Amino acid sequence: MSRRRTEGANLQPYTRSKRRTTPSELRYSPATVQALYLAPPAAGVLALIFAFWKTAWINRQDAGTAEMREIAQLIREGAMAFLAREYKVLAVFVLAVAGLLAVVNSQSKLGQTPLVALAFVVGATASALSGYLGMRVATAANVRTTAAARSGLAAALAVAFSGGSVMGMTVVGLALLGLGSLFIVFSQYLFPGASHLMTAINALTGFSMGASSIALFARVGGGIYTKAADVGADLVGKIESGLPEDDPRNPAVIADNVGDNVGDVAGMGADLFESYVGAIVGAMVLGAGAASIESGQYGPVLLPLVVSAAGIVCSILGTFVVRTKEGGNPQVALDTGSFGAAAVMAVATFALSKQLWPAGGTELGGKLVTWSDVGLATVIGLGTGVAVGIITSYYCSLGKGPVNSVAEQSKTGHATNIIAGLGVGMRSTALPIVCIAGGVLGSAHVAGVYGVAIAALGMLSTTGIQLAVDAYGPIADNAGGIAEMSHQPPEVRGRTDRLDAVGNTTAAIGKGFAIGSAAMTALALFAAFAQQANINAIDLTRPMVMAGVFVGGMLPFLFSAMAMSAVGEAAMEMIQEVRRQFREIPGLLEGTAKPDTARCVDISTQAAIKRMVLPGAMAVVTPIACGFLLGPEALGGLLAGCTVSGVLLALFMSNAGGAWDNAKKSFEGEGYTMSDGSLHPKGSDAHKAAVVGDTVGDPFKDTAGPSLNILIKLMSVVALVIAPLIALSS
Amino acid sequence: MSRRRTEGANLQPYTRSKRRTTPSELRYSPATVQALYLAPPAAGVLALIFAFWKTAWINRQDAGTAEMREIAQLIREGAMAFLAREYKVLAVFVLAVAGLLAVVNSQSKLGQTPLVALAFVVGATASALSGYLGMRVATAANVRTTAAARSGLAAALAVAFSGGSVMGMTVVGLALLGLGSLFIVFSQYLFPGASHLMTAINALTGFSMGASSIALFARVGGGIYTKAADVGADLVGKIESGLPEDDPRNPAVIADNVGDNVGDVAGMGADLFESYVGAIVGAMVLGAGAASIESGQYGPVLLPLVVSAAGIVCSILGTFVVRTKEGGNPQVALDTGSFGAAAVMAVATFALSKQLWPAGGTELGGKLVTWSDVGLATVIGLGTGVAVGIITSYYCSLGKGPVNSVAEQSKTGHATNIIAGLGVGMRSTALPIVCIAGGVLGSAHVAGVYGVAIAALGMLSTTGIQLAVDAYGPIADNAGGIAEMSHQPPEVRGRTDRLDAVGNTTAAIGKGFAIGSAAMTALALFAAFAQQANINAIDLTRPMVMAGVFVGGMLPFLFSAMAMSAVGEAAMEMIQEVRRQFREIPGLLEGTAKPDTARCVDISTQAAIKRMVLPGAMAVVTPIACGFLLGPEALGGLLAGCTVSGVLLALFMSNAGGAWDNAKKSFEGEGYTMSDGSLHPKGSDAHKAAVVGDTVGDPFKDTAGPSLNILIKLMSVVALVIAPLIALSS
Repeated sequence: MSRRRTEGANLQPYTRSKRRTTPSELRYSPATVQALYLAPPAAGVLALIFAFWKTAWINRQDAGTAEMREIAQLIREGAMAFLAREYKVLAVFVLAVAGLLAVVNSQSKLGQTPLVALAFVVGATASALSGYLGMRVATAANVRTTAAARSGLAAALAVAFSGGSVMGMTVVGLALLGLGSLFIVFSQYLFPGASHLMTAINALTGFSMGASSIALFARVGGGIYTKAADVGADLVGKIESGLPEDDPRNPAVIADNVGDNVGDVAGMGADLFESYVGAIVGAMVLGAGAASIESGQYGPVLLPLVVSAAGIVCSILGTFVVRTKEGGNPQVALDTGSFGAAAVMAVATFALSKQLWPAGGTELGGKLVTWSDVGLATVIGLGTGVAVGIITSYYCSLGKGPVNSVAEQSKTGHATNIIAGLGVGMRSTALPIVCIAGGVLGSAHVAGVYGVAIAALGMLSTTGIQLAVDAYGPIADNAGGIAEMSHQPPEVRGRTDRLDAVGNTTAAIGKGFAIGSAAMTALALFAAFAQQANINAIDLTRPMVMAGVFVGGMLPFLFSAMAMSAVGEAAMEMIQEVRRQFREIPGLLEGTAKPDTARCVDISTQAAIKRMVLPGAMAVVTPIACGFLLGPEALGGLLAGCTVSGVLLALFMSNAGGAWDNAKKSFEGEGYTMSDGSLHPKGSDAHKAAVVGDTVGDPFKDTAGPSLNILIKLMSVVALVIAPLIALSS
Repeated sequence: MSRRRTEGANLQPYTRSKRRTTPSELRYSPATVQALYLAPPAAGVLALIFAFWKTAWINRQDAGTAEMREIAQLIREGAMAFLAREYKVLAVFVLAVAGLLAVVNSQSKLGQTPLVALAFVVGATASALSGYLGMRVATAANVRTTAAARSGLAAALAVAFSGGSVMGMTVVGLALLGLGSLFIVFSQYLFPGASHLMTAINALTGFSMGASSIALFARVGGGIYTKAADVGADLVGKIESGLPEDDPRNPAVIADNVGDNVGDVAGMGADLFESYVGAIVGAMVLGAGAASIESGQYGPVLLPLVVSAAGIVCSILGTFVVRTKEGGNPQVALDTGSFGAAAVMAVATFALSKQLWPAGGTELGGKLVTWSDVGLATVIGLGTGVAVGIITSYYCSLGKGPVNSVAEQSKTGHATNIIAGLGVGMRSTALPIVCIAGGVLGSAHVAGVYGVAIAALGMLSTTGIQLAVDAYGPIADNAGGIAEMSHQPPEVRGRTDRLDAVGNTTAAIGKGFAIGSAAMTALALFAAFAQQANINAIDLTRPMVMAGVFVGGMLPFLFSAMAMSAVGEAAMEMIQEVRRQFREIPGLLEGTAKPDTARCVDISTQAAIKRMVLPGAMAVVTPIACGFLLGPEALGGLLAGCTVSGVLLALFMSNAGGAWDNAKKSFEGEGYTMSDGSLHPKGSDAHKAAVVGDTVGDPFKDTAGPSLNILIKLMSVVALVIAPLIALSS
């Protein structure tokens, strides 16, 4: 069969008549092209199969004694009840927004289509589903990790890491299956042809908006839940009543363990789902602006999907590396798996770019971009991510200068500890921002704004294994809680605590990847918005733009304040309930009566769901209102201001929280020796001051900080979705 | 004499040949025009005469007992010694920068002139001189206020307010005398003619840079000094040793009182000097871009100077209103004087615009601007200032919701108090930012970017009386300290405390004016920079600009961290010294031996001077490095990012600090009644938690927060000064 005579809507990359390509560029048979389209959803299915296989393995493991199973059941029920109620509220939101999207996009002008509403619903559903599945397996893995910890550390690590890898693979699997399938349907069947490609891509942005919306609500809701329960359990249970951590007599202890799941597992899963999808969609939109599209060469649009598909394969291979090395040092195994996968991905991106990219390069955003430029942008992205990760982990690490300075300042009391922590957080923004700015300049220098998007994708393409490492932490944490509540011997708790510590470095660097990729993804989405809204320049010398930057810069402050007061108020309710139970249930403290743990679970659930609505709604409504009332340029300013101040506050809050946390830990164990040689053990005044700092840091690092990463992308993607409409109305 | 035949370099506004004006526009005789040029320096001289007259009156008042005079002498010596050492360091800096400015501007291209170095030195000297004179009189007025307080409140108010008004009039007098004289020399003698006007104005920007440089160092140095002494005196003297506030046995107590002077008097004076000059120069640069300049109509350039001259007259009249009402409620008198002056100024601006503005309007920044537009922009500026002031004072006021919420959360301990205060601070950014954005849009809508500059000037034109109200607070504070240390009867201390409370509302609204005008002045200077650097657009979709915004946004965080750790480290040194004295000087606590107060004064002085250098230098070096290495657009992004994040952090830190301060005060007196009806008196656990919050808030609201207002303007004005060079090199 001659290549040049092949026709068919599903072979667009191959058969455009207006093409300016030379025959040498057409290297692929139609079957190969078709395979390229199918690779992403196929990789998604592969990830899901892997996840199901791992889930089945976990479920076959011993779930321990009847007491352990009973406690695990309470935690699982609480977690699932929260998700069910959260999703009920979100379903109303999703349907309302979908209806609105369908109506306002009903006239087909400038590439809009009501199908964006469908993509929105699919994206939201896929995100919610991955949270649900991930949490199901996490709440099965926790008790099995405890059970395995009775025999040894290695066995416990295997169960916990398997639980994390199910979460990781479910997230990337559903994301790529959803995105890849929708892209085939939109670009090959509903809107075939290069001239309609932009319409297909516009519809696809809805998927990203759906994912981001769910992520923001899940992060905020989960963050409020977990911190309210945590503070309630600690403040009344531990400090006022003198019970140890995770004591079964503490009424808030089940809610606390549920919180680890809804905040750290489901919340983080939705978070990374959103990052991953945002980076892919941002790169696709920018790729659709390439000159080669007109000549039927879809490489710039397909590449982000195919690279992500390769990332899934690398991630799966990476999990096997972690398994094989299990006998050795687990930390080394985790690092080898995680960084090995990323390194292989960098090479794979070069190889894939060489194959998929239009030969001789293509014009993209006013710049000639070649395949090697794209590969280079990936490497720049990875370098930026590693640099930001190492720097942020330096600021939060035990024994390093910044944490020691906070511990040191605890000597003179609470106030100096707080000031030191705030100072460390503020100072810690400097180098990461310089790295991010350098990464933006570098990747844009080699491949324009598309390069920024590809750099972000480079950091996120191995999300599968990164999330596996991240998600096994809360599973180990839960396992420890179950060990304590089910009265296991102390060495079991010791093993789960050690599990928790392993992989912390990897997770800390992963946090740097999250912030770096959030900044660069937001910028890519911002550039995509400008392209789709047909804006030539967003000129800072125009007062309208500057006013937008001011208001946009303020939003992360307002959002953080809302999140923090939500935690404060919810914690208050929890505190009062725990106090009431100690007061009103006779025999509770003596262990002769059982606490009403369900009531505490219910309070956290209600408080979180009620209080997640306002900050979440603000993020969706503000860009829409600004865009339609003040126009696309003011909206551009709003996004830029929000992105910059959001990234800064996220760095500030996460790192301050991390530094306070480890400053407190500095006093545990053998105590902390100050620079003047004095030893301050656990329970000393300095340690008490450090505990206060840690409590202040909790809503910083677990509620407000991580939510900001989502906020900036959600606002950008909302702007991107409505960009064609704004372009029309202005 | 026929108007149209008059010639002369000093009559440029009248005699240009290329003019497009109609004869009806030429309403003034040469003598009138000359008078307009002379009015600003003349008003400056008037203010200085008023200040000298008031100073003489203060010096004639009774300085009290020998013991009071001795203590006052120690405070005065400490304050003057600090200034002398600070100015010695700054002299080196000023001469080095002046030399650099002279060298790089030695080739006369694009309107540069080495005279910018001269203006820089004059500006720096005038600012330093106003700090010196203001502090001299403040350290004379403090003890005389104590002496007057022995006879009654009204007499004490008269002395304290007179001291404040000397500071106010010295600042505006020296500013307008310096600026007005330089403008005459530059525009009429050295660079006569409309074609050279831009050169004259460029030279004038050096004055603003000089003022801003001194202000930043003075604010940071003063802020470090006062808080180190404060924390040292409180933590060891009050808490560890149980001495009352301002007890003469406390070694740090003199340093603490010196701190009030160097921080709150000299620091604030330099701050407002800088704001005032920045707003005037920003408006002049933008006015020089008006189309009417070519036709010899200098209205847009002269107006800012003449309006400021009128503001001096209104301020002087305002101080008399405060005097006449002295018998009544002092708060009402202060408000009437302050707001009355502002209202009269709004009317005067309309009248002056009508007279000076080119008839029929002139094109300015691509917009036809008429005299009524200019008047309207002033009103918008005043409205914005009042709105921001009322909102920020709401967030910091005793008995209002936000402060009560912080007090309420003190019930559950230190951590919840801190979280609540941080939350209030973050939330408090929202409405002021919306007001500022609205003010920018409104004033730009009526009169373009010139309107933004005029709006800022509208808020600052009555700086004379505003500063008088601000500066009398620390004088009253000092008077209280002297009363305590010289063992006056309690009713004397009571009167000085009440003095301190009077005018707080006025001062709080003045703080809003300061932040609002800082934001708008920075934007005006930013627009002036873009104009002088010949940039058409600073386009946010360009990665270079966005990278600049990121790095610029980070600088206020880094700067605040530096300022806060400087306070922390300096306080540590002070704490160790005070502890040493209590340990090593026998009989100190018993009152039989005298403390070595000079040593504490010396520690604060050295610490402040050593630690002010790095943050100050960063503010000057960064825009220069960015401009020359990365070009004018990256620098534009840097300025925008720094302005937005600086204004946000300033609002956050100032308001959080204010809320913590008043939350602590809520527990004093009769105690604070929580919403559950429980009463928490002074000394309760809730009060102790609130004290910690207040200590955290101190460096927020007195060191980092106010310095940020200067930082953003200093960076903008440095960029403005180097703009012609960057335009040349890029």
